[in-house]
Amino acid sequence: MLAEIITIGDEILIGQTVDTNSAWMGHALNEVGVEVARITSVADREEAIVHALDHVLPGTTMVLITGGLGPTKDDLTKIVLTRYFHTELAFHPLAYENLARLFAQLGREVSEINRLQAMLPVGARIYLNKLGTASGMHFEHHGIHFISMPGVPYEMKHLMEDYVIPFVQRELETSPILHRTLLTTGAPESVLAERLDAFENQLPPDIKLAYLPSPGLVKLRLTARGRRTDLEAQLEERFAELSHLLADVAFGSEAQSLEEIIGKMLLELGHTLGTVESCTGGAIARTITAIPGSSAYFRGGIIPYHGDLKQQLLQVPKAVMMEQGQVSEPVAIQLAREGQRVLGTDWCISTTGIAGPTGATPEKPVGTVWIGIAGPGFAEARKFQFGNERGRNIQKTTLTALDILRKKLKKSHPQTLA
Amino acid sequence: MLAEIITIGDEILIGQTVDTNSAWMGHALNEVGVEVARITSVADREEAIVHALDHVLPGTTMVLITGGLGPTKDDLTKIVLTRYFHTELAFHPLAYENLARLFAQLGREVSEINRLQAMLPVGARIYLNKLGTASGMHFEHHGIHFISMPGVPYEMKHLMEDYVIPFVQRELETSPILHRTLLTTGAPESVLAERLDAFENQLPPDIKLAYLPSPGLVKLRLTARGRRTDLEAQLEERFAELSHLLADVAFGSEAQSLEEIIGKMLLELGHTLGTVESCTGGAIARTITAIPGSSAYFRGGIIPYHGDLKQQLLQVPKAVMMEQGQVSEPVAIQLAREGQRVLGTDWCISTTGIAGPTGATPEKPVGTVWIGIAGPGFAEARKFQFGNERGRNIQKTTLTALDILRKKLKKSHPQTLA
Repeated sequence: MLAEIITIGDEILIGQTVDTNSAWMGHALNEVGVEVARITSVADREEAIVHALDHVLPGTTMVLITGGLGPTKDDLTKIVLTRYFHTELAFHPLAYENLARLFAQLGREVSEINRLQAMLPVGARIYLNKLGTASGMHFEHHGIHFISMPGVPYEMKHLMEDYVIPFVQRELETSPILHRTLLTTGAPESVLAERLDAFENQLPPDIKLAYLPSPGLVKLRLTARGRRTDLEAQLEERFAELSHLLADVAFGSEAQSLEEIIGKMLLELGHTLGTVESCTGGAIARTITAIPGSSAYFRGGIIPYHGDLKQQLLQVPKAVMMEQGQVSEPVAIQLAREGQRVLGTDWCISTTGIAGPTGATPEKPVGTVWIGIAGPGFAEARKFQFGNERGRNIQKTTLTALDILRKKLKKSHPQTLA
Repeated sequence: MLAEIITIGDEILIGQTVDTNSAWMGHALNEVGVEVARITSVADREEAIVHALDHVLPGTTMVLITGGLGPTKDDLTKIVLTRYFHTELAFHPLAYENLARLFAQLGREVSEINRLQAMLPVGARIYLNKLGTASGMHFEHHGIHFISMPGVPYEMKHLMEDYVIPFVQRELETSPILHRTLLTTGAPESVLAERLDAFENQLPPDIKLAYLPSPGLVKLRLTARGRRTDLEAQLEERFAELSHLLADVAFGSEAQSLEEIIGKMLLELGHTLGTVESCTGGAIARTITAIPGSSAYFRGGIIPYHGDLKQQLLQVPKAVMMEQGQVSEPVAIQLAREGQRVLGTDWCISTTGIAGPTGATPEKPVGTVWIGIAGPGFAEARKFQFGNERGRNIQKTTLTALDILRKKLKKSHPQTLA
């Protein structure tokens, strides 16, 4: 079962908006056995939209279209689709009721411009949008399902979850697509490839290995496609083999992110965590607290960005700051140790470094970072030399700090898999 | 001058990776007068890549291709392009030298698998990649420039900045594409559209208005395209008119994000900022410290996630916590006021709320958030009711808190434009 995604909007082409919808849809479709063969982004112009509709790939069963359904003049998708499928707009009472309810919640009357959102193409299935004014529209044409949804991510997700995915499961015939991803850190892609040469050569034709490098991380993805009854078991077996071969560099699978793994380990241990972040400015705490339920183990953090606060809130001795500087081993250790005490936690991670672009010295170039950790009965720190780019330095420091914590937790807790 | 972007990689189609490269490239190309007419993402399969190359849109001058250039077996782009353009691979001594240098920096020998990265197509211009093993390749075919780059974002950016953009400026003829974006908050898209009806009808044909809604924000973008000598002046004039019409809801232009505007205002005032974040868990500090140079005004933050820390670190009286709960007006005010004192700042913003999915009570459903602010001589808090989704609640709280701060700063500092 092949699908295509077409996203409509100048904002994507000019780089004002990153298209996150397509990735979300690709993932959701894979889970129900639909493979996305192509993603195309086109402009808010009739001829561009028509060109995309005219050139659907052969073999496609479903075309998911997002964007261009707002009430304003720059939004053309509904008009173009209505013309393309040779139908016309008519007033849709249920869609209007839905609109009226949304406006009532905001304490407003339905405005004229929004009333037009209830004019919908005759002959299309209409998917009512509980979260916004643009309805989903589902056309069937020469055996292909064309489904148009708004581009606002949470409205699109609502229509996907409530209408499109159930439609696929109910009415289309699919075969499984399964993915398992191993996360590794500490070895480059080419080294992993050499180590996996024999493994890769022995994979059956319906299981494929892919390498996905990113700063500080290489993901290894096994994908299985097809109708074999033992496909899932085969995939699990290969994945176990892969995990075993790379046991020294693997830290988990993608179903669990580093912050989720840490959360689980802390919960199992009944331990708590705190953070003292200087150069990461809250990025580590923000990552940890993105996980639902993190309040059960994350007590809090301190961001002593200015040197004064390192002294006042975390008792870093002035002499140490003067002699060794803020970006140094004793400061990183003290921040972690004192953080552990002040925040009342079992574990505390700390960062102090030069994210850039300013703040470098000859001995401490941009990208110099100390990461400290304090745990039951110990406190230590390690130095890293990351790159020149502020954003990437913050990201790499965050990931590295979480991985240091994971390894220490694992030692406290050897029976976990992670 | 029209361009197309083709991104190659199963990871995009299955939703494992969000394609951020295309947005970056679209933006960079617009700045030198190149319009991206389409973005297409296809699989790591020969026939998918060939299909995309065969179906370039009429009128396209340049096709930028990213991805599929790694040293591993799943990467096919170089082989497919070499076949497609009827050439062959040959050893490229400069590319090899570059590889050897990269490996030497890591203290490694060039491995056999990486040596193959120096085998490059004869007849293509080769763009040496200082940051990775995959070179850029530039083919010219029937007057169209096909340029292939690695998919790792910082490697792609390096090749774009050092080779592709200079190539466009040197060898291609372009005409300007100019964008100006006004950021607004507090009025929905349809209300803005009604207020702008006359303005929109009077726009000249070479200036276009687009509405981009996102949680808590509507962006209004004016785009001007063409060769008129007064195009830029015309655009600025229309933008000024737009800003004037929406003065009550506009807070800045996209060149400046909310955190940049705040940074500038603080610098001009010579004031400092701190944060005390409970429900946002570091997201506000992380946003502020993403700005280079933020250490000049951001002194630091406290993340008192657990109630105990609200009492211990920020002196919230136990009685208040018991009677009104952690998510309440007096707690938000105390966090901001005491944060200001402890962090030694002129300004402090605080958050306390129920991000979800757990922690709700009948009186305080998920999405209930108090945002506090303390500034010179005052401290206050406001209540918000956001939605059901944890991630979006954190995001909306962050944006709203920054906007509250911006408005207060503006009052202290009425001469600024923001």
